[in-house]
Amino acid sequence: MTTPSDHFILTLSCPNRPGIVAGVSTFLFEKGCNILEAQQYDDTETNRFFMRVVFNVVASEASLPEIREGFAAVAAGFDLTWTMRAVAEKRRVLLLVSKFDHCLADLLYRWRIGEIAMDITGIISNHPIETYAHLDFDGIPFHHLPVTKATKLEQETKIWEIFQSSGSELAVLARYMQVLSDGLTAKLSGKCINIHHSFLPGFKGAKPYHQAHARGVKLMGATSHYVTSDLDEGPIIEQDVERISHQDSPDDLVRKGRDIERRVLARAISWHLQDRVLLNGSRTVVFRD
Amino acid sequence: MTTPSDHFILTLSCPNRPGIVAGVSTFLFEKGCNILEAQQYDDTETNRFFMRVVFNVVASEASLPEIREGFAAVAAGFDLTWTMRAVAEKRRVLLLVSKFDHCLADLLYRWRIGEIAMDITGIISNHPIETYAHLDFDGIPFHHLPVTKATKLEQETKIWEIFQSSGSELAVLARYMQVLSDGLTAKLSGKCINIHHSFLPGFKGAKPYHQAHARGVKLMGATSHYVTSDLDEGPIIEQDVERISHQDSPDDLVRKGRDIERRVLARAISWHLQDRVLLNGSRTVVFRD
Amino acid sequence: MTTPSDHFILTLSCPNRPGIVAGVSTFLFEKGCNILEAQQYDDTETNRFFMRVVFNVVASEASLPEIREGFAAVAAGFDLTWTMRAVAEKRRVLLLVSKFDHCLADLLYRWRIGEIAMDITGIISNHPIETYAHLDFDGIPFHHLPVTKATKLEQETKIWEIFQSSGSELAVLARYMQVLSDGLTAKLSGKCINIHHSFLPGFKGAKPYHQAHARGVKLMGATSHYVTSDLDEGPIIEQDVERISHQDSPDDLVRKGRDIERRVLARAISWHLQDRVLLNGSRTVVFRD
Amino acid sequence: MTTPSDHFILTLSCPNRPGIVAGVSTFLFEKGCNILEAQQYDDTETNRFFMRVVFNVVASEASLPEIREGFAAVAAGFDLTWTMRAVAEKRRVLLLVSKFDHCLADLLYRWRIGEIAMDITGIISNHPIETYAHLDFDGIPFHHLPVTKATKLEQETKIWEIFQSSGSELAVLARYMQVLSDGLTAKLSGKCINIHHSFLPGFKGAKPYHQAHARGVKLMGATSHYVTSDLDEGPIIEQDVERISHQDSPDDLVRKGRDIERRVLARAISWHLQDRVLLNGSRTVVFRD
Repeated sequence: MTTPSDHFILTLSCPNRPGIVAGVSTFLFEKGCNILEAQQYDDTETNRFFMRVVFNVVASEASLPEIREGFAAVAAGFDLTWTMRAVAEKRRVLLLVSKFDHCLADLLYRWRIGEIAMDITGIISNHPIETYAHLDFDGIPFHHLPVTKATKLEQETKIWEIFQSSGSELAVLARYMQVLSDGLTAKLSGKCINIHHSFLPGFKGAKPYHQAHARGVKLMGATSHYVTSDLDEGPIIEQDVERISHQDSPDDLVRKGRDIERRVLARAISWHLQDRVLLNGSRTVVFRD
Repeated sequence: MTTPSDHFILTLSCPNRPGIVAGVSTFLFEKGCNILEAQQYDDTETNRFFMRVVFNVVASEASLPEIREGFAAVAAGFDLTWTMRAVAEKRRVLLLVSKFDHCLADLLYRWRIGEIAMDITGIISNHPIETYAHLDFDGIPFHHLPVTKATKLEQETKIWEIFQSSGSELAVLARYMQVLSDGLTAKLSGKCINIHHSFLPGFKGAKPYHQAHARGVKLMGATSHYVTSDLDEGPIIEQDVERISHQDSPDDLVRKGRDIERRVLARAISWHLQDRVLLNGSRTVVFRD
Repeated sequence: MTTPSDHFILTLSCPNRPGIVAGVSTFLFEKGCNILEAQQYDDTETNRFFMRVVFNVVASEASLPEIREGFAAVAAGFDLTWTMRAVAEKRRVLLLVSKFDHCLADLLYRWRIGEIAMDITGIISNHPIETYAHLDFDGIPFHHLPVTKATKLEQETKIWEIFQSSGSELAVLARYMQVLSDGLTAKLSGKCINIHHSFLPGFKGAKPYHQAHARGVKLMGATSHYVTSDLDEGPIIEQDVERISHQDSPDDLVRKGRDIERRVLARAISWHLQDRVLLNGSRTVVFRD
Repeated sequence: MTTPSDHFILTLSCPNRPGIVAGVSTFLFEKGCNILEAQQYDDTETNRFFMRVVFNVVASEASLPEIREGFAAVAAGFDLTWTMRAVAEKRRVLLLVSKFDHCLADLLYRWRIGEIAMDITGIISNHPIETYAHLDFDGIPFHHLPVTKATKLEQETKIWEIFQSSGSELAVLARYMQVLSDGLTAKLSGKCINIHHSFLPGFKGAKPYHQAHARGVKLMGATSHYVTSDLDEGPIIEQDVERISHQDSPDDLVRKGRDIERRVLARAISWHLQDRVLLNGSRTVVFRD
């Protein structure tokens, strides 16, 4: 369901115990709020509870700061990890890309027509801007940050400076083909989404389409996940596959993969920006739309 | 999520207004219940609210009748249409079948291994029991009710008598190839699930696989829906498809269709029996597992 | 399989009889050609035979005209309807579009990176060029041809003139939201591909996403087909679907549909341009890649 | 396409070179045969050619032995590895199973209604026949062969004796949960199909559903492959997947997996029995129906 701009989104997770839903919903009701959407998940293995609530204010003049302030008491009572924000406040997103720009072109299109609501704070590439001559960046700052083994530390330091100075809340590796160092991944923990061009955990590492071809699998896929220091092992947000056959060469897989990659990455970003993705250890809870 | 036998399921729908979730969840909390799963849907077109709650009793000795009795007051306040039942109470289901028994064989298998929790009250066919010589009915009463135009009224009267006398709550047309009369569909409203062997609304009526072949579609499907007097127009519960090609003859579609039909029907029945399907006019709200 | 530029493609269809494959393959062998790919289909209902062969010249200096000339005798003997062309000769394609440009943007991207090998001869829209300010047309002629009931004949005459004068071989209705007249569809028979935003034959005509929402289907789709005078009834080339739920509003279907539409249309165009689609009455034979 | 019982199937593979199709098709034509279906694949990496031809005899009285004898000369000329057999001759198949019988029940059903044309030569289990009390074995010999580490050699010797003495051509591990020794897999090379309950190469080895749950993947699958001494690394014949979510417990995956497993295994067996699967090193060429 699409969420208009006067809506607010609350997410929370906490140790499970009776009364959480009652506590949260009663608080919202008393503040004059109406719950429009709610999803919850109770992880019986870890005994952890997860919830996402979309609400608007219908019976009061309460502002977001007021509601947040009031909610802090509820949150303390249930030991909640929580976020509450206005849908109208667009998230600030930094895009990183290398030579292949199909995900970048796709994200720019979805952003332009309003399908993905975000402010793009910049585009970082290890290739020069001429690589993307046919894309309309529409005034988005472009940063050419070439990288070699010797300059990796400096280059990543610049990435982090751009991320911070631009007020970015999310970094998207839109086929950015450099492995981030542990230092940078640590800083971007939970704030950096990658698209890997295989159906993980199959075919980690380099040239996954060639690996898939060599193994002779009958379906190929792509995986969008949060970046962690453990390469291709981060919490998975979304995956999708297409059927292939013995006829498909590695080049065919690359071609067919572009379609899968761009839709998997776009979904993962949309869901992250709509607070539909909650971390649950090394896994995710995804309240899909 | 699978739901153990000490669980209870509450479903409700009502005109939307603030406070419903708070009211329901606070009631359950005060009765000593713990909410394990909850799904809700707010139909902004019709302004109707739908909810399904799975809970157990953790902090009291409240019995289902006591909880039901207490909940009646909440229900009246919000003008709820509601159900509340124990997962442990198996629903009673009557199966109807004609010559093709792939759905019947599949349902019997899922029932036997406990995948679909139900009591099968009987099997009605317009074909004799010898048709199913290789199936183990395991003591389930079998009723051979042949039917002609001239005897349709009497035959359907018998079906209804068997449904009632056996305490059945759901009738499943598991490839029962007779069109039910308006009289019988009216009595079974919301309590009768059919499997139609096409992706509705395409290819209504007879021989849908031949229609699909003639039209040259590239995907074929099956649809499970509640039976209404308007043939093949009842509220859809579940659909699925498979890719086909120009190579597939009508016989190939029949063969490939069997796999789709049996999984679509099994899902629809499971979800109905788990109170995951709520009627919303001519459509359904399905809280999928 | 991708087909390099020294490859040739032969397609043929004819009344079925023994010896066709032997006749065709022996001819090619004797001309010094090597068969790289071959697909065939024998329609036992209509007794018609369909074949697509990809070959290159390995053991002679034969040119395409020479091979074509020699093949004419084989063709006459088997009463073949046939085409033979060099993969290197790009087909000339005219794009038509209305306000929604997601298919246009997608096709331009695939064309630019060489995924779809074609020469785009022009872009016709009933909306002004400003509508597409963010798309890089890269010198492709743009024709703004507004249309009203009163001017439809003149507008379609201009479309046909542009199609002819630009040497176009295929017209693509990339979400062009005007119904073509019988006169124009007749001229474009077998040379005009449309994308319809429903899983045909369900939801023909206007606002199919709203129709799908109203009917409560559980999967939505898109269909690419050749345009005929019978609206939404032309031979289907490709279809695809995605799962939806009760939560999806018509706007959500529009959003999710964009992804399906663009990939279904792109596949249909690619396959047409690679001579993978052969007409078989009101259906198609599609030798998928 | 279904293949009637007067059809013959020829499969072949050989080093690629011009003239193979011409040689094969001309031979068949001269023997009075009509090609009904043909599929071919040219592996440009290994320069190996693969072909499957379905034909019948229309213009002569040639018998299968005569055609085979004549074809031997063609085969020698092109260095073919080839098979030719009558569709009417049913293949003999030995089934192995452990406690979970969903694949066994499914295969028995498909066999009974004629969907999978085969003669079942026996059912071997490491569990007693009472485990399958509700299945109608219809006179198929049942062999209870319990196994421990100490008796594995003897037990596998018995399996091999039964395979040979029953004239079996294919062994199917229909959720047979014992790892075959290298000795037995060597004897059954290319003649033994397994169903692994994961989307390989992800989650090899034991408890794949638990592994999939722990990793948090968003799609789960099953894989049917030829058994080799390298566990879960044999050539893949067919795979399929279903979408799952954070809500799915390992038990839910087991339940949902049953549906995938049985259809993946059934397809793999059907295609093998119809000579649609050709080995290509560690991969397969599958001419799907």
